[in-house]
Amino acid sequence: MSAYKKLEDHFREIANFEHASGILNWDNATMMPSGSAEVRASAMATLSVHIHTLSTDPRIPEWASLAKDEDMDEWQAANVREVERLFTINAALPADLVEALSTAASQGEQAWRALRAENNWQDFKPYLDEIFNLSRKQGQALGEALKLAPYDALISLYQPGIGTQDIDPIFAELKAFLPDLVQAAVARQTAAGNAVSAPKNISVDKQRELGLATMKTLGFDFNRGRLDVSHHPFCGGAAGDVRLTTRYDENRFLDSLQGVIHETGHALYEQNRPPAYLGQPVSAAMGMAIHESQSLFMEMQLGRGPQFIEYMAPLIRRHLAPDASPTDKQWSSAALYALSTHVEPGLIRVNADECTYPAHVILRYEMEQQLIAGSMDVADIPQAWDASMQALLGLSTAGDYRDGCMQDVHWPSGGVGYFPTYTLGAIAAAQLKAALLRAVPDIDQQIARGELAMVMSWLRDNIWSRGSLYGMQELMTRATGKPLDVSDFKTHLKARYLGE
Amino acid sequence: MSAYKKLEDHFREIANFEHASGILNWDNATMMPSGSAEVRASAMATLSVHIHTLSTDPRIPEWASLAKDEDMDEWQAANVREVERLFTINAALPADLVEALSTAASQGEQAWRALRAENNWQDFKPYLDEIFNLSRKQGQALGEALKLAPYDALISLYQPGIGTQDIDPIFAELKAFLPDLVQAAVARQTAAGNAVSAPKNISVDKQRELGLATMKTLGFDFNRGRLDVSHHPFCGGAAGDVRLTTRYDENRFLDSLQGVIHETGHALYEQNRPPAYLGQPVSAAMGMAIHESQSLFMEMQLGRGPQFIEYMAPLIRRHLAPDASPTDKQWSSAALYALSTHVEPGLIRVNADECTYPAHVILRYEMEQQLIAGSMDVADIPQAWDASMQALLGLSTAGDYRDGCMQDVHWPSGGVGYFPTYTLGAIAAAQLKAALLRAVPDIDQQIARGELAMVMSWLRDNIWSRGSLYGMQELMTRATGKPLDVSDFKTHLKARYLGE
Repeated sequence: MSAYKKLEDHFREIANFEHASGILNWDNATMMPSGSAEVRASAMATLSVHIHTLSTDPRIPEWASLAKDEDMDEWQAANVREVERLFTINAALPADLVEALSTAASQGEQAWRALRAENNWQDFKPYLDEIFNLSRKQGQALGEALKLAPYDALISLYQPGIGTQDIDPIFAELKAFLPDLVQAAVARQTAAGNAVSAPKNISVDKQRELGLATMKTLGFDFNRGRLDVSHHPFCGGAAGDVRLTTRYDENRFLDSLQGVIHETGHALYEQNRPPAYLGQPVSAAMGMAIHESQSLFMEMQLGRGPQFIEYMAPLIRRHLAPDASPTDKQWSSAALYALSTHVEPGLIRVNADECTYPAHVILRYEMEQQLIAGSMDVADIPQAWDASMQALLGLSTAGDYRDGCMQDVHWPSGGVGYFPTYTLGAIAAAQLKAALLRAVPDIDQQIARGELAMVMSWLRDNIWSRGSLYGMQELMTRATGKPLDVSDFKTHLKARYLGE
Repeated sequence: MSAYKKLEDHFREIANFEHASGILNWDNATMMPSGSAEVRASAMATLSVHIHTLSTDPRIPEWASLAKDEDMDEWQAANVREVERLFTINAALPADLVEALSTAASQGEQAWRALRAENNWQDFKPYLDEIFNLSRKQGQALGEALKLAPYDALISLYQPGIGTQDIDPIFAELKAFLPDLVQAAVARQTAAGNAVSAPKNISVDKQRELGLATMKTLGFDFNRGRLDVSHHPFCGGAAGDVRLTTRYDENRFLDSLQGVIHETGHALYEQNRPPAYLGQPVSAAMGMAIHESQSLFMEMQLGRGPQFIEYMAPLIRRHLAPDASPTDKQWSSAALYALSTHVEPGLIRVNADECTYPAHVILRYEMEQQLIAGSMDVADIPQAWDASMQALLGLSTAGDYRDGCMQDVHWPSGGVGYFPTYTLGAIAAAQLKAALLRAVPDIDQQIARGELAMVMSWLRDNIWSRGSLYGMQELMTRATGKPLDVSDFKTHLKARYLGE
């Protein structure tokens, strides 16, 4: 058996345990009775340890090294590249640090749930101290192995191929651009006097049917996936069995619908991984920023765009208000578009609109850089948070930890370095949409007719089917003619929010 | 660390992988989209191989042997006994036989699904040939390791502690007793002129609510379990997370209700395993006959008994026909009791009533003995089946393979030796009910009032909480004063069906 084949068999085995872990995670969030949490946690821990053991098998670098002398095609070579990258990451951290991180993350997340509700920063702070201490060590160890600065190494856990050197200028440009944009967009919508109250008392059953119909329109394959309900929406499950979740609020149907569209973007990427390499690292998505570009393409570029809303409006009305008149303004595409593109600076990242969202990310990114560099203490976070919110969005969070620096689960659960992927994904989504428009000039007219085949085949060819064959910047360059670049995002925002 | 502690850690790890496997199996039958079957089968196979590897770890017998020189209490000693029994079974079969059995079972089950529908014995026969060839080898190898005759070794896979030497005389007695009983019971019910048509068009939602309410009445812990729908009802999931399923037919609500009561019997046994030993073999049920005794206790002894039906009748009416009059005869306890105890010889085992069910089991048991001994060929099964059905139930299956020898999934899926546990369980259930009645003379009056606390605490003390602390016959003797004995079952049938 060739060394390459041995590698493939080994990673197929890992993928099978990850399948189990993915379905158990989904079950945890959707189906599991609460009293089973303890036995489940124990089973999940055993699976994690086993996956980590398999992932750090010392034969992996040996096989990888031998495989390079074998006859490989470009997919196999890319697979070996990904295998080596993953092995380097997994082997870089000493076992005691892995365990300390895992413990701190699980205790931090538990503490966060309780203490956020109490707005209790004092008791929460020690958990964050521990997390950032360990994250600094993690960044250090990973950085040495990957030859990256510590914070760049942390970012690369979520999105390889990009670092602060690329992100700093992009975010600087957004920082300069966004405040004026937000102000102008708010003024414009005030002048237009658009109603911003959504239809109320929409039953969960109706919303669910609408969500399913929308997923079908977008091409979600229900033969290899499901839609369920969880407290925090996600796209999970396993390769070949993709499971989305949403949540329903009878007075905010658009939140659920847009959430479903967002998660369907993730799901389409997962469902369209190159089938010949399923179970191999090269079939996986090219990082979380690219993953987010797919969910944001569906939610922001497509789903909140005027053309798709024009197509969806009658469908939404028929599902949610079958007795309403076709001329009822509440269900008109104009009203739904106004609701979908309402701009309003707020304290909470997950509720933020497309124009103010980057401010939330930039604030966290700048803080993470300083916290990992050691130039900021955890104790200074609340004051720095308030100052940044005032500077970026004109809002104060003084004394409000719950909706300030305690609002996100990422830090207490050990996810330092993740935040930038949200805005990098939004930028990539705009860049992909612009490239699609160049390739298919009447694409917006097709979308307005509900004809999404060209959109989907373009994304399949340029992103989904490529897995991790190319690195992030090569993937973007092949798809759009250039590496990640903020200009299309700015153009998009000016067009949609200022009519320019 | 003591050798005993090492054993416990090792088996806790195995239990955690079994947790994953159990939940994935449940997901398979209830939630999984059909297109994910292939990736799921691959993940399940990897989990099985890993569990088998852990279960045949050569350190197990070393640790067990060392543990016996350590200071152990009776639970720990029983745990070591179970550990050694399981290791002997797992290590007895050569790897190529394990793989051949697994492949034959999975191909056999698939072929059975297709060929049963076509009544196609000729194409099905080669699969059964392969299964019985391999089962003979399996019985041989296990028998040598366990010092048992081959068929006894196969039975012991499902119910240790009992073999043909004990079962032969029990089944001989039933064979002599049942034909007259069935004839007399049918004559009696004809004379009584009881209606046997169940209320029709009962919505699935109402049936589901009734099923949930009944599970609650029986003490099912919804904090550590669920009820869902699957094509074949089962009690599965994992220790500490027990998942029941049922199926619904709008014109046969009693089938689903009695199915739920049956599976709840299994579930109560699982949910009340000794918590201190969860994850250890000693916490597991004492074999499938005892497991079946718990489901049949709930379904037959309790659920189809006149007292429980007296309590349930108004509850059933309120759930399923809230507008019906309290005096509506269709919903009276008399009508529901008549439906629940209707006797009618039929071709299909799973549809059989309490009086004719043993005939189906005895037929299969006698055939398995000869097939494993080599004194009968697979080719002779249809003819032998027809002859036995005529002798035992007066029905012919000539030419009808679908409802004859092709009706069960057990043989094509490799489950040779399982059938006896159904009737042994029915016998044990009657014996336990008789012992409970001696211990709590007014237990039937309590049941008629819906007071089940004493029933459940007696079963908890005598069966559920004991796990595998005692062998089967010791468990029965401690609970009822004697080893498994058919007399209470006969007394029960005569009382219920002949009024004696």
